Amino acid sequence: MSRIITLTTDFGTRDAYVAAMKGTMLAINPNARMVDISHEIQQGDVMEAALILRRSVPYFPPETVHLVVVDPGVGTGRRPVCMQRGRSVFVGPDNGVFPLLFGDASGDVIVELDRSEYWRTDRPSNTFHGRDIFAPVAAHVASGVDVSKVGSPITGLTPLHWALPIADDEGIRGLVLHVDHFGNCITNVTAEQVEARRRGRRVRCYTGSTILEDLRSNYAMVAPGEPLLLYDSSGYLEIAVNGGNASDLLGIRKGAPVNLLFVT
Amino acid sequence: MSRIITLTTDFGTRDAYVAAMKGTMLAINPNARMVDISHEIQQGDVMEAALILRRSVPYFPPETVHLVVVDPGVGTGRRPVCMQRGRSVFVGPDNGVFPLLFGDASGDVIVELDRSEYWRTDRPSNTFHGRDIFAPVAAHVASGVDVSKVGSPITGLTPLHWALPIADDEGIRGLVLHVDHFGNCITNVTAEQVEARRRGRRVRCYTGSTILEDLRSNYAMVAPGEPLLLYDSSGYLEIAVNGGNASDLLGIRKGAPVNLLFVT
Amino acid sequence: MSRIITLTTDFGTRDAYVAAMKGTMLAINPNARMVDISHEIQQGDVMEAALILRRSVPYFPPETVHLVVVDPGVGTGRRPVCMQRGRSVFVGPDNGVFPLLFGDASGDVIVELDRSEYWRTDRPSNTFHGRDIFAPVAAHVASGVDVSKVGSPITGLTPLHWALPIADDEGIRGLVLHVDHFGNCITNVTAEQVEARRRGRRVRCYTGSTILEDLRSNYAMVAPGEPLLLYDSSGYLEIAVNGGNASDLLGIRKGAPVNLLFVT
Repeated sequence: MSRIITLTTDFGTRDAYVAAMKGTMLAINPNARMVDISHEIQQGDVMEAALILRRSVPYFPPETVHLVVVDPGVGTGRRPVCMQRGRSVFVGPDNGVFPLLFGDASGDVIVELDRSEYWRTDRPSNTFHGRDIFAPVAAHVASGVDVSKVGSPITGLTPLHWALPIADDEGIRGLVLHVDHFGNCITNVTAEQVEARRRGRRVRCYTGSTILEDLRSNYAMVAPGEPLLLYDSSGYLEIAVNGGNASDLLGIRKGAPVNLLFVT
Repeated sequence: MSRIITLTTDFGTRDAYVAAMKGTMLAINPNARMVDISHEIQQGDVMEAALILRRSVPYFPPETVHLVVVDPGVGTGRRPVCMQRGRSVFVGPDNGVFPLLFGDASGDVIVELDRSEYWRTDRPSNTFHGRDIFAPVAAHVASGVDVSKVGSPITGLTPLHWALPIADDEGIRGLVLHVDHFGNCITNVTAEQVEARRRGRRVRCYTGSTILEDLRSNYAMVAPGEPLLLYDSSGYLEIAVNGGNASDLLGIRKGAPVNLLFVT
Repeated sequence: MSRIITLTTDFGTRDAYVAAMKGTMLAINPNARMVDISHEIQQGDVMEAALILRRSVPYFPPETVHLVVVDPGVGTGRRPVCMQRGRSVFVGPDNGVFPLLFGDASGDVIVELDRSEYWRTDRPSNTFHGRDIFAPVAAHVASGVDVSKVGSPITGLTPLHWALPIADDEGIRGLVLHVDHFGNCITNVTAEQVEARRRGRRVRCYTGSTILEDLRSNYAMVAPGEPLLLYDSSGYLEIAVNGGNASDLLGIRKGAPVNLLFVT
């Protein structure tokens, strides 16, 4: 038997890196059931990894092992870690990705991976801990090894924080965290924040080259080619174009400011 | 146990969307066996989805569940459907993709997905029915739930039709339906149509910047870099370049006209 | 039960080709467990396929079946083959890819695939042996059919050779074999070759627009944006930039010369 293992990396799918990790896991756990989340995280972009995880991890069943290798500090002193949190397990470098995902740096059990009997080799490569440390540990945990066994306990992870929106009674000032495959621009502003503050007022949004009025509930509520403002499927404010690429058409890139004004 | 589930979407593989669907299916059916057909359908291009399915679905074993989410009308009135056809099952929005795939709008059992007990939530997102409605239904059906249980019967799907080639005794006028990864240009003209009409005559093809004489049986029958006309592995007329990209080299894009003349 | 089957092709992931192979394998062996190595090999680039395999195949468990379809000669006289080597099996066209992978053209059992009872059809397409011959044979072997059963024995594969580095007491002259997803430039020079010859001397490397001094053990040993020379995770000399794209920044492409000088 095997628990499900998800994979999230910045390795791309053209090279041998992902396959080397999967082969390593299958060599340890021949029944490993692996699901790719994404291998197209921007190189070293820990925040993007956390954002993609935030939008996928909640849908996986309990007991899933999430292997996350976006590791710009590979070979340096950053700690390799494994964390039990609720019934799920997370394995990867301690570079802030898990605190970003959860909003805090804690876990039920957190260990530093210092037991080479759970690695592929006791002389791991300096440039590919994904293959030599993280994937083997994930495979062992998926096979039933307890998280407390694969390393020495530590008390918390290295925290990293999202840029939070600034809000007052007049409106909310946020930014674009992610431009998706369709060109939809996902912001750091949540539906909850907007609804808690708007008090029945309409929303006007200044961003890129455009001003958007009102929230819509689906893309087809505006004509094809027209921009709109809506809450995305994870509860974040999104700027989109019906049938088009909002990022290109409105000149909005990752990091762009998004200013919401509540108007009567 | 689980039937095989295939996935076809226009979501790309960079974002969390495909993984959110897979996690949702695994949460319902921990043994779900999922195979990606393609996640790189052009945004909202129902015809391209149907074409890719036509070239892959026939090779899957009976009992396979095909989940198809190319859904430009998400959140509007288009119906979410599930269809049993032969021993296979199809799940997705009723936007013409299945009638295109089969050439007719019928099925052995067709239901509209109106039973939220088979959804992820009874309050589905307005922008991501793939995660909240279609994937859960596919997972339930793959677990053994009968198609007739997951919704209310309807009599037929919304039809959509291919642009058909125009043929007479002199030749056939078709178009390029798809440019593949190699730059090969797949037309809407079938080997059957050509062979039924040519009556021993040679084929001359006018398309893009070139005139092609005669059908070849494989790429290497012309010199490297030379264009050729052949039947592809699914029985459609294809314009290719041996070792090269026909679309780029001959200036042929999706939708380009292809004129066949039968010559003696 | 099924042995693991890996897939390596130049088909891309947008089209139906990979899915048609997977469906075909599942129709033969409903328990087939398939792992993608890469579908983004450059069109017809047998050397790139061998290089990606060299960096992934060693990590898979014994009994794995490796399906490799980079097949510019499809439909011509090149032989379709299946090889047992150690406990692993390789299936694909006999175009040099396996001799490149192993450094020799031998195997424990090598057969030419001439028994159509193990194919999808006895009238295979002239352009898609991946679907009609190679995938079905891989599925049968993964189900337990012995390699000696799927074809007639042949004595060796068609050899193909890597360009080897030229070495003397002063240094080593090699080339860039592969530029990976990160822009790291992997050369054909091995750590073993360098260490056997340097005799305590420092290494100076002339390549692209730069001169690199000394070997580093990980990326973070130089400042962000700075180039470095290190051994990669498979034991080959690599030219990289910490946090950047060495190929773009240093103007180094696949095939570029790399000159190492040993200096005191």
